[in-house]
Amino acid sequence: MSKFAVTFFPENITVEVEEGVSIKQAAALAGIELKSTCGEVGTCGRCAVKVIGGDIKNLGGNLSSRLRNSGHVLACRTFPESDIKVEIPAESRLDEHQVLVSTSREKGILVERELDLLEGYDFDPICRSVYLELPPPTITENASDLTRLTAELRKHLEHKEIRIPLSVLRNLAVTLREADWKVSVTLACFNGSAHIVSIEAGDTTSDQYGLAVDIGTTTVVAYLLNLKTGSVVGKAGTYNKQARFGDDVISRMIYANEPNGLEDLHKAVIGTVNELIDKLVKEHKIKSSNIQTVMSAGNSVMAHLFLGLTPKYIRLDPYIPTAADLPPVTARDLGLAINPEAWVFSFSALASYVGGDIVSGVLCTRMSEADEMTLFIDIGTNGEMVLGNRDFLVTCACSAGPAFEGGGITFGMRAMKGAIERLSIDPETYEVSVETVANGKPVGICGSGLIDCIAKLRDVGLIDRTGQFQPVSSDRLRQNEEGPEFVLVWGKDTGVGKDIVITEADIKNLIRSKGAVYAGIRSLLQMVSMDMEAIDKILIAGGFGNYLNLSDAISIGLLPDLPVEKYEFVGNTSVKGAQLALLSRQAYQDAVEIGRKMTYIELSVGTTFMDEFVSALFLPHTDLSLFPSVPA
Amino acid sequence: MSKFAVTFFPENITVEVEEGVSIKQAAALAGIELKSTCGEVGTCGRCAVKVIGGDIKNLGGNLSSRLRNSGHVLACRTFPESDIKVEIPAESRLDEHQVLVSTSREKGILVERELDLLEGYDFDPICRSVYLELPPPTITENASDLTRLTAELRKHLEHKEIRIPLSVLRNLAVTLREADWKVSVTLACFNGSAHIVSIEAGDTTSDQYGLAVDIGTTTVVAYLLNLKTGSVVGKAGTYNKQARFGDDVISRMIYANEPNGLEDLHKAVIGTVNELIDKLVKEHKIKSSNIQTVMSAGNSVMAHLFLGLTPKYIRLDPYIPTAADLPPVTARDLGLAINPEAWVFSFSALASYVGGDIVSGVLCTRMSEADEMTLFIDIGTNGEMVLGNRDFLVTCACSAGPAFEGGGITFGMRAMKGAIERLSIDPETYEVSVETVANGKPVGICGSGLIDCIAKLRDVGLIDRTGQFQPVSSDRLRQNEEGPEFVLVWGKDTGVGKDIVITEADIKNLIRSKGAVYAGIRSLLQMVSMDMEAIDKILIAGGFGNYLNLSDAISIGLLPDLPVEKYEFVGNTSVKGAQLALLSRQAYQDAVEIGRKMTYIELSVGTTFMDEFVSALFLPHTDLSLFPSVPA
Repeated sequence: MSKFAVTFFPENITVEVEEGVSIKQAAALAGIELKSTCGEVGTCGRCAVKVIGGDIKNLGGNLSSRLRNSGHVLACRTFPESDIKVEIPAESRLDEHQVLVSTSREKGILVERELDLLEGYDFDPICRSVYLELPPPTITENASDLTRLTAELRKHLEHKEIRIPLSVLRNLAVTLREADWKVSVTLACFNGSAHIVSIEAGDTTSDQYGLAVDIGTTTVVAYLLNLKTGSVVGKAGTYNKQARFGDDVISRMIYANEPNGLEDLHKAVIGTVNELIDKLVKEHKIKSSNIQTVMSAGNSVMAHLFLGLTPKYIRLDPYIPTAADLPPVTARDLGLAINPEAWVFSFSALASYVGGDIVSGVLCTRMSEADEMTLFIDIGTNGEMVLGNRDFLVTCACSAGPAFEGGGITFGMRAMKGAIERLSIDPETYEVSVETVANGKPVGICGSGLIDCIAKLRDVGLIDRTGQFQPVSSDRLRQNEEGPEFVLVWGKDTGVGKDIVITEADIKNLIRSKGAVYAGIRSLLQMVSMDMEAIDKILIAGGFGNYLNLSDAISIGLLPDLPVEKYEFVGNTSVKGAQLALLSRQAYQDAVEIGRKMTYIELSVGTTFMDEFVSALFLPHTDLSLFPSVPA
Repeated sequence: MSKFAVTFFPENITVEVEEGVSIKQAAALAGIELKSTCGEVGTCGRCAVKVIGGDIKNLGGNLSSRLRNSGHVLACRTFPESDIKVEIPAESRLDEHQVLVSTSREKGILVERELDLLEGYDFDPICRSVYLELPPPTITENASDLTRLTAELRKHLEHKEIRIPLSVLRNLAVTLREADWKVSVTLACFNGSAHIVSIEAGDTTSDQYGLAVDIGTTTVVAYLLNLKTGSVVGKAGTYNKQARFGDDVISRMIYANEPNGLEDLHKAVIGTVNELIDKLVKEHKIKSSNIQTVMSAGNSVMAHLFLGLTPKYIRLDPYIPTAADLPPVTARDLGLAINPEAWVFSFSALASYVGGDIVSGVLCTRMSEADEMTLFIDIGTNGEMVLGNRDFLVTCACSAGPAFEGGGITFGMRAMKGAIERLSIDPETYEVSVETVANGKPVGICGSGLIDCIAKLRDVGLIDRTGQFQPVSSDRLRQNEEGPEFVLVWGKDTGVGKDIVITEADIKNLIRSKGAVYAGIRSLLQMVSMDMEAIDKILIAGGFGNYLNLSDAISIGLLPDLPVEKYEFVGNTSVKGAQLALLSRQAYQDAVEIGRKMTYIELSVGTTFMDEFVSALFLPHTDLSLFPSVPA
């Protein structure tokens, strides 16, 4: 498959992508988030960009004539066909990421809500820089350099205890004198102490940075923030280099048990973050040593591997992380290519399969401060969910499996060119028409396509409520060696030269995945003796939300049958929460508290989850009263 | 000069010494302190040892017939003449160094006083080891490993905050399981936090150690303490390897300014301590990784070099140390060959020339808790002194110069074989008879000999009160190119083949040295508007006291003319205080407070010191009323 370099301006960031990846997806990889409220189907018209060089395939879509006439295209509907250059107008950007954008549907209309990232918190970064002009020593005012420095610092800090690392202390005497006693002291304030991390000559307080990192199993995204202003200086994203040791957390944990496996994985993720740092440092012409702190969010396995902790016992019964409250460590400890004395914070790995990415999400959505009963769901290979409000938080993880990401499905694939993302089936003839990503010749089915497929198969009666094919008169329905399958696209019409089918095994697989998610939700509700109706708001986090057709998801019983107005898509809350915690010490403290406050429900204990799971292995469910809006 | 190896038993420690070094001096270098109350002149009979191999020169002395008959000799009066082996009986040892021994003269009789090192403090080491049996996790009791560990630890500690270094956390999961959840956790408790430094399988709490180190400019002494019992496991001493870069702190500070000079000096002292650690570890068959903490005491320059801090600005006006309160650092930071996570503490370098060795002395002598007005004096190249009691502490340093150590004196030398240590001058004929160390042929004059010499020259009227030679009829008094000189030993009777003389310049040099010390004492008293008589007790610390003839020192005006009963010789209080602070957190805290509480008087400010110094450039002083016991 061809690869193209996509360079974004004014950032001048280049990412390399495979054929069939949209400009919007490429932008996300480059750490640039574009507005979008339509699920990337070309209808909201918000992701307009201007291609200023190279060849593209433009599939059109809803774009104002003003923008179209000025040469803009929709990033979600435009695909590179060579190396290209793209200019991103300010109005297409997600407001420098200082807001949390959520989209929801009110009375059938998509609405976008923006929450000021810092709302309710003071701007009070965990790492700050203070400019000091010290009185020079004299023969009578002869306190030591450190005493002099800390006396002045205390005027700016409430901390009684000020710590200084030896490497900084070793340069103190010379720095102070070369700087003529005018210095900028950068400190991380946590656990009741102020930890000096650097001392520089002159007033460099405007030139100190923090990094918010979302360490995903698949991709790693970093935001560079200016610690004085709180503004986002730049963003970058790339694939997690751990991918070559396994696609998902389970295979990585298995690899970690190999000789040097843990070290390989640790170095791979550190190398990934260092690559992003290198990119950001070069693009924004800053010194890497001026990156003075890092806030990282990731699932428990990623957080363990990031710190070099063995994930071995996360995988083995009784599934115990090494540490829930992950201690701050130094960049030196990890080998991050920033100031080696910088402190690196990680959100709590509160349970083996509910980690810092979820804590970060709860933090930045403010669900732990809300009156409304909120359900937060992040669906990937695992479905992680949190239910609660200001009064309590319960959480669990259910193994959804990789089906929604195309894993374990005969023709499953990620949302790349040629992936079937929508389809319709004629209820009389069972003829199928498909829409594919980038209008490519069909090569497989992505997550949203699979959900749509199940929904439509059920709609036309091709499958029953258990997912079993029903005898109909159509040559698309046939028997393979392992069971029945249904032809979605005939071989001659595909890009792979063979029939694209969905098998009964695929369908059962998807039903198990959706059943696990739904059973998780029900189990959480049971824990707190609550009905589905008690939920005021459902927050869908992560990339999954971008592609999800809500009514499909409800009609197959993946998500609760609640008014669509209750649903909000909140995007990558993991990196947002990390940004928030960088900019507010109170927010970081709240994140620690959220980690401690959440009650983790281990679903393998007792029979609740298994009972719920079995009940959910129907379309939409055995108990139809739970899905009143879905035709029986 | 020949060198001999002296091996001590039962320790089986070997030190190499030059010819003319007594067994007692060799023992001190090996870190073995022997009893002695006579100033090593063979009269107290307490330093008896048994030579079990090799050739010696035994100068006899006061020894019980029981001991003499069983083959013992006095260590202070016996000198190796080949490699030798020496057995040290328990009764000659300073009680495993758990006491502070002071000697004083009451009604003319030498008395030895012992202070329990821990008296007034609880045994509560700064680093301790706790054995824990943790409940293993289950599917319902599924807290993280670290949560489980800290919950159990908190039952044993009052600390809210427990910190764990990443290297220990990385092994936690495996260690706990291999140990079947039974582990010994070693922690250093300071600054309100408990810092885990190691976690080992099983109950190893009896096998954890701390090191008290006195980092002297010339020698480095280390005591290995068991952290569970508080007992001294072993001691070792050696020359500071920095010596090849300069003999005194000034020349080392100059060398530190050379390219790589600071690194050379830092590595040299770390290498010296590592050599002692290696010795102790091998002799006592312990694991170096089980040395879990270090308490170090040294003057400010030594403390700076130990931590790798530049001493540059200590030497330059206005004489500023980098840090007074020296922060705890890890062994990893310094390259010490012990547990890399072990915390290394340093006593306060409170001023450029009053450092942690003095703080340690004040701590272990309890002078900061005493009612009596106490003067603490440590005389080396610098004279450092502290005056005060429970109410206040003032301190200063005066540059005594190296004269008392033989430096800058024509025939000055250290107390080695052939050094004149006592002399008498016939008041009629001016004939001189001398006593030398090890009865060797005279080769020079050591510190005590020089003090004696000045006193005797003045007694017989050969010099006047300014130190100027008076015309007398003796061919010993003659003129050299630079001025008058007096022949102490004629060339034919010496080991150097030429006349050993003391010149008027030597005498002036010594008068300046003694004048500086006395002026320092007077300046301190003036600071607090006190008379000499207000002093209840004078503590003489350090090696100087071992050789000092008190009445000589008073008669030349080096020390105040106070009843000898007020004087006590307290030995190496620097290493004693370090031991105490290792064994008691309160003592360490008190040492920090002592450092902060002491008011440092910079003698170069104002005219007080200079006026006092000028007044003290007489024998004994311009103001004879200050020395009523000294004949005018």
